[in-house]
Amino acid sequence: MIVTVTLNPALDLTYEIDALVPHGTHRVTTVAERPGGKGLNVATVLHALGEPVLATGLLGGPTGERVAGLLTGEGVPAAFVTIAGETRRTVAVADHDDATGFWEPGPRVTPGEWAAFTGHFGALLGRASVVALSGSLPPGVPIDGYATLIRLAAAAGVPTVLDTSGEALRHGLAAGPDLAKPNAAELAALLEAPRPVLAAGRPAPSGPELADATVALDHGARAVVVSRGPLGLLVLTEQGAWSGVPPERLAGNPTGAGDACVAALSRGLRDRTPWPQLLADAIALSAAAVAAPHAGRIDQDTYRRLRPAVRVSAA
Amino acid sequence: MIVTVTLNPALDLTYEIDALVPHGTHRVTTVAERPGGKGLNVATVLHALGEPVLATGLLGGPTGERVAGLLTGEGVPAAFVTIAGETRRTVAVADHDDATGFWEPGPRVTPGEWAAFTGHFGALLGRASVVALSGSLPPGVPIDGYATLIRLAAAAGVPTVLDTSGEALRHGLAAGPDLAKPNAAELAALLEAPRPVLAAGRPAPSGPELADATVALDHGARAVVVSRGPLGLLVLTEQGAWSGVPPERLAGNPTGAGDACVAALSRGLRDRTPWPQLLADAIALSAAAVAAPHAGRIDQDTYRRLRPAVRVSAA
Repeated sequence: MIVTVTLNPALDLTYEIDALVPHGTHRVTTVAERPGGKGLNVATVLHALGEPVLATGLLGGPTGERVAGLLTGEGVPAAFVTIAGETRRTVAVADHDDATGFWEPGPRVTPGEWAAFTGHFGALLGRASVVALSGSLPPGVPIDGYATLIRLAAAAGVPTVLDTSGEALRHGLAAGPDLAKPNAAELAALLEAPRPVLAAGRPAPSGPELADATVALDHGARAVVVSRGPLGLLVLTEQGAWSGVPPERLAGNPTGAGDACVAALSRGLRDRTPWPQLLADAIALSAAAVAAPHAGRIDQDTYRRLRPAVRVSAA
Repeated sequence: MIVTVTLNPALDLTYEIDALVPHGTHRVTTVAERPGGKGLNVATVLHALGEPVLATGLLGGPTGERVAGLLTGEGVPAAFVTIAGETRRTVAVADHDDATGFWEPGPRVTPGEWAAFTGHFGALLGRASVVALSGSLPPGVPIDGYATLIRLAAAAGVPTVLDTSGEALRHGLAAGPDLAKPNAAELAALLEAPRPVLAAGRPAPSGPELADATVALDHGARAVVVSRGPLGLLVLTEQGAWSGVPPERLAGNPTGAGDACVAALSRGLRDRTPWPQLLADAIALSAAAVAAPHAGRIDQDTYRRLRPAVRVSAA
């Protein structure tokens, strides 16, 4: 099974209102509650594809129980470690124009809870085919928390996909994940950090984005997929580089497209799918997430329609 | 004990942010959770005064459990009827200037749940000295729901205080509560509704607000207290009319001042306090709520300081 790790999940609330009036009072017309957090989206997409998956991470308090209940309601297998702090909420207030977001800070994780999680994670590795590590680290988890998990997985022979940003990404890369998936902005931020000495024997990058992508390899990842929104995906590995774009431009909600991409990449890593086919699959599945109304969902018809039409070429 | 009824309670969330940017994403710096709903504020104020109180009403789902847990944490005795729907949340987003509010619609109450509540309420009446009925009616509760409760209380010899608005107020008044406490705006809205024929033998109103206040008596209340914010309180009864103003102007948060007023009125009704003293007590306690940081709290020092200084005169 594919294990998805969400250390900083949330209960996502979406409020629909007519129009936002700053400092006014608004009657909410509809309320939607969903499990939130990038790793939970990866898990729900894999589950929708019929792939064996297990969602893990940290949940606490009544809000954490609600997230667990929503996952159970969707049939997604989950095994979270319970923490004393309360899982955060995010509130997105949608009016006719756009959404306004409010993100709670989330609980602080104690050293004992983090130790309990690493033990729990280690026990899950015996049943894991791939591990996907997604999203930010909550306060209290060491900044090299992903590096710890990646090294545990490597020691157990389980490949890892890392999708995070900032310092959590930089420290995670140092542990050598099999695949990192920053988006272009996250990669640019990484470039501003001190860059290690270049390793020898890598194909020369042929364009500015490939040049950017090499920085992730320099930091330690064995391969890097860069998501470029409607411009598609680029993969840089020690065996070569490929890129592809969606065959058509899709209107919709881009939130969660990156998580669908990670779902495809995790499955492909498990199946040792060759890079060009894997990239094409990830492009089609990302587009199918854009076509679905919210994060964690895919439009299966869009996926089936686009998958054969995606063209990937050497970059 | 005084029984406070809250049929449409809420979990009140207050988010602090730096500044509201419509259609932006905001990191919430602090989150506060409190039991919300006017009747719960009445109960917490009475509990803070050391008065025996029991909070009842309808709660459902994990959010309802959270509200019950917060009440327990504050030591407020409570006996709610559990419903299948989920208790609503309210979110107040406070920036440096003011607050922006989002109110969830709340659950629909089924006929069976309402019947269960009236049975539960009837059983509590044997131990009740006064009943305070506060706030809006949730969807599914009959518009004459308060009238039903007032008649049950009257049959058991228990006086009632009604603090609601609109059609719930108009229908509730018809059952003859011992005291109604509309604010000036709620009273004005009532005036627009069809007015029954005037009863004979009432003291002639001597000013425009007293004239407005008579409408509540015309509708059936045995006495009416009109809250006028910083202008104080006015009471109109079959024995006479009195008014008073706070002895000083207080800066603070007026939310919850009306609920502190109801707490004072309920206690006074229980103790058969003469109207002038009762009005003075309600004015001082309302001011003490303005001086406290949020609804359901009073500043005890302000209360003790102001109470002897309030002057009430015949209106």
